[in-house]
Amino acid sequence: MRRTRWLPGTVLVFLTCGLSAMAGEGGGSELGERMTQLVLQLAAILVAARLGAHVCRRYLHIPDVLGELGAGILIGPHLLGPYLGLFESVSGTGFPVSVELYGIATVASILLLYLAGLETDIGMFLRYSVTGTLVGVGGVLVSFVLGDVVAVWTGLSSGYAAPPALFLGAISTATSVGITARVLSQRGKLDSPEGVTILAGAVVDDVLGIVVLAVVVGMCRLSGHAGEVHWGHIAGIAGKAIGFWAICTGLGILLAKRISKVLEMFGSRQAMATVSFGLALLLAGLAEKANLAMIIGAYIMGLSLSRVDAAHELRHRLQPVCDTLVGVFFAVMGMMVNLGEMRSVLLIGLLYTAVGMGAKIVGCGLPALLTRFRPLGALRIGVGMLPRGEVTLLMAGVGLAGGFIGQDVFGVAVMMTLLSTLLAPLAMIKLFDERSGVRGTDEDREGTTNRSTSLALPNAEVAEFLLQSVCRMFAQEDCYVHQLGRDEDLYQVRKDDLIISVQREGSKVSLTCGEDDYEFARLILLEALANLITVVVESGLGVKPAAGEQVGGEGGDLRFQITVIP
Amino acid sequence: MRRTRWLPGTVLVFLTCGLSAMAGEGGGSELGERMTQLVLQLAAILVAARLGAHVCRRYLHIPDVLGELGAGILIGPHLLGPYLGLFESVSGTGFPVSVELYGIATVASILLLYLAGLETDIGMFLRYSVTGTLVGVGGVLVSFVLGDVVAVWTGLSSGYAAPPALFLGAISTATSVGITARVLSQRGKLDSPEGVTILAGAVVDDVLGIVVLAVVVGMCRLSGHAGEVHWGHIAGIAGKAIGFWAICTGLGILLAKRISKVLEMFGSRQAMATVSFGLALLLAGLAEKANLAMIIGAYIMGLSLSRVDAAHELRHRLQPVCDTLVGVFFAVMGMMVNLGEMRSVLLIGLLYTAVGMGAKIVGCGLPALLTRFRPLGALRIGVGMLPRGEVTLLMAGVGLAGGFIGQDVFGVAVMMTLLSTLLAPLAMIKLFDERSGVRGTDEDREGTTNRSTSLALPNAEVAEFLLQSVCRMFAQEDCYVHQLGRDEDLYQVRKDDLIISVQREGSKVSLTCGEDDYEFARLILLEALANLITVVVESGLGVKPAAGEQVGGEGGDLRFQITVIP
Repeated sequence: MRRTRWLPGTVLVFLTCGLSAMAGEGGGSELGERMTQLVLQLAAILVAARLGAHVCRRYLHIPDVLGELGAGILIGPHLLGPYLGLFESVSGTGFPVSVELYGIATVASILLLYLAGLETDIGMFLRYSVTGTLVGVGGVLVSFVLGDVVAVWTGLSSGYAAPPALFLGAISTATSVGITARVLSQRGKLDSPEGVTILAGAVVDDVLGIVVLAVVVGMCRLSGHAGEVHWGHIAGIAGKAIGFWAICTGLGILLAKRISKVLEMFGSRQAMATVSFGLALLLAGLAEKANLAMIIGAYIMGLSLSRVDAAHELRHRLQPVCDTLVGVFFAVMGMMVNLGEMRSVLLIGLLYTAVGMGAKIVGCGLPALLTRFRPLGALRIGVGMLPRGEVTLLMAGVGLAGGFIGQDVFGVAVMMTLLSTLLAPLAMIKLFDERSGVRGTDEDREGTTNRSTSLALPNAEVAEFLLQSVCRMFAQEDCYVHQLGRDEDLYQVRKDDLIISVQREGSKVSLTCGEDDYEFARLILLEALANLITVVVESGLGVKPAAGEQVGGEGGDLRFQITVIP
Repeated sequence: MRRTRWLPGTVLVFLTCGLSAMAGEGGGSELGERMTQLVLQLAAILVAARLGAHVCRRYLHIPDVLGELGAGILIGPHLLGPYLGLFESVSGTGFPVSVELYGIATVASILLLYLAGLETDIGMFLRYSVTGTLVGVGGVLVSFVLGDVVAVWTGLSSGYAAPPALFLGAISTATSVGITARVLSQRGKLDSPEGVTILAGAVVDDVLGIVVLAVVVGMCRLSGHAGEVHWGHIAGIAGKAIGFWAICTGLGILLAKRISKVLEMFGSRQAMATVSFGLALLLAGLAEKANLAMIIGAYIMGLSLSRVDAAHELRHRLQPVCDTLVGVFFAVMGMMVNLGEMRSVLLIGLLYTAVGMGAKIVGCGLPALLTRFRPLGALRIGVGMLPRGEVTLLMAGVGLAGGFIGQDVFGVAVMMTLLSTLLAPLAMIKLFDERSGVRGTDEDREGTTNRSTSLALPNAEVAEFLLQSVCRMFAQEDCYVHQLGRDEDLYQVRKDDLIISVQREGSKVSLTCGEDDYEFARLILLEALANLITVVVESGLGVKPAAGEQVGGEGGDLRFQITVIP
């Protein structure tokens, strides 16, 4: 059964790649030729990346991004590409993909980071989790230092402040907790103290990772692409990079309301979203010119607009654009991987991965242990922070495109992403399942039982719509709404001590929270529901206004009836 | 008041362009430099195009596309571009924009035509409107012939079968009824016999226009880019182009169910949409290789999938992608316009526009007059078919990019788009308003009164969602659902004699139809409503199951009550 389900998709990919390749032969005007090639390459990438993502999600239970990456490696110029005749190293540039394909990938990566920023309301978050902040900071610091050190010891970098070492340090910092969230959610542990701390830590981690990248890129730029920065200069350079970052973010937050006003002038919400994306591209370009990376500018624009009322709407409109195009970015990243060159850095990659994993366990576990967690809880947190994902690849892409790192270092980064994402869930399952009775803290809170409310909607579309309304309403109540991984319809809502998980599975929406938060969760849900079902018939509809006539409604253990009132 | 509302947007554009331009100076790695330039150009384009579209829609009441085009002309390399330092003719290629920017524009145009195809279920449509079909065919034939002839007479083309003449013929065929639909809808004339015929004719027009383009591109390709095709060969070439078209469309429709099955394998609807877009890109590339244009392949893929159940879902997912990116295409088309060169073809352009307008009035009016319309009705139909829009620009872009036409012919096409879109509504208002009492046909049908049902939903999001549900349900009932213009939330639903208009304004959804169709419209609306409000509370929610407890609902002239039943 399984194999027959695989088959059509695989056939589709081969057919797409094959047909694209066959079509790739032949002549025409140069521009037309390049456009045709681009369109055929995009066709192959979109289909292959989605199939890879599907296989990873459905059969291997690992994040989409690994499938997209794998598809890129497979059909890219270093593996099947030359045989397909579709992807070949572009002569002259030494770059494995054409500038027009790379352009689309770049735009997709900017959109991805813009959306990530839009979601990250850091100011609101820091208030609520001291342990999470410490865990995030600890993980970033230890990962960066150890990543940098390993690069020098293994000979990948000539010095501690040389670009490859700095990038291997930065790349090691970025945690991607999508898969952690899924494992926790399946075990009902999302709002356990460990779960909450991991998710809080991951947000801090994201922001710090971007700051680290800003500093690293700034240092590499100023030092020339191969040289060494003297340690004496570093404070100054770091200061400048952080300064630019802080000024832009500060200005952005100050101007957010004004920007939002101007956006609203454009009338339709689609226009607002498009213009806001234009602004993100603008700040991305400016950041690049200011010797930072483009994705940093995009992230700052997102961060700035994350507190305006329209933020949820902007995300909602741009998410489908990102979902459609971002696979191109990760597949192109895969195309950068030269498996042949990887053999020489295989051992180094394994060492780097092992150290990177140890760094997170120590860097995140220690602050947890020192605050309120038992050793088991601290270990769980450290392991939960292991997986690397999208941001790691983005950073490595910045390094490669900027000429700061070579394909060897890039390959090492990909290896780390792959291995950490594969191994972390296994370790987590062991730590959570085998000792599920053992608590991670000494506190009482863990004893409280969770209450869950689930609504069965008529179909998945309505469920998705309600989920979005609920999230928007929580956001309007000044809650921090955190989507857990880009592939999941799973959110965590936080405000002070309040923790609520919101999830959609098929046509079902469920909210889970502690007894104390139940009333609030119920209120929001009822309000969202009322927004759906409060319909005013202004004219016509032809219903005779007879009292008691029923229009719809039927039940499970509770029933709603919609009654027409005269 | 008005001016102060303009101001912030204009300032935003200048700021974006200015900052982008300032940032445009400086060095870096070549690839990085090109990416930064691309990102800054995109930023300027997105903001300027949206502002242009907004001004056109809100203040000038003309379609978005003219604003996007105008923004492109304004900030492009032929006007302000060199002063801004952001857009300059790319040296060497003689092409006014970079290959990476043109790549994004190309992908956007493919998506636009794919979505247009997805919406056009021609088989279902032809059954219901003989007059509409005749009107469409007549308009296309007369426009093509006269466009071709004018090109030769004015000296723009060396012969009737030379590429410029063929393209000026093809370009003249494509009607864009978005603005017509808006004018009719404002006057409640969408389902008048004239309105119905115009909209039917426009669908036929779209399909035929694409076939004509296929034939023209095939002829131009085979004749070499400048030469003349002997009339003897034309039948063969046209046969081949139409044959490819027919075979692809036939195969597509035959395989549609199978393709849809494979798409469904990908699980999430977003994945389905992405993969289907990949297939559209594939067929676009193949079409180009088969000596047709890419947009033809994309349209055929859309047409093929238009009858599968998922078609509505695919459109719904990809529409935001198109809305975000398509402005880039039209702005880039604007950048191709060289106002300096336009001066020399100004008179020719006016003549071509006048002939093109006359061609539609005669070509569409005559079949109307010969079937069931009075002279006034026939004139109304002819005028309603005047406006040219997106497809005209797409075709002109194909000609320019393929090297078949020069900037002079391209400029003439843009002039025609602009003038016909500006003049048609004025003429329509005159014909419909001043003689609004006068009917266009002798038939009874016109006498039937329309009934309108409107629902006030709690907010615009819910209204939009309900509108989508209603359209999906009509489609499932084998109705043909036709979105009138890409900027409007206005649909016409047709099946046999059934004609229903569906419209959203703010948080209000209204359906309008004749007395006979009322029951069916009401059924669909109630079903969509029930889908929204039939919610099963599976557990929790904390509502005490007491009979008669009200959760929500309140009224206008009718009230709904939602009652919890024990």
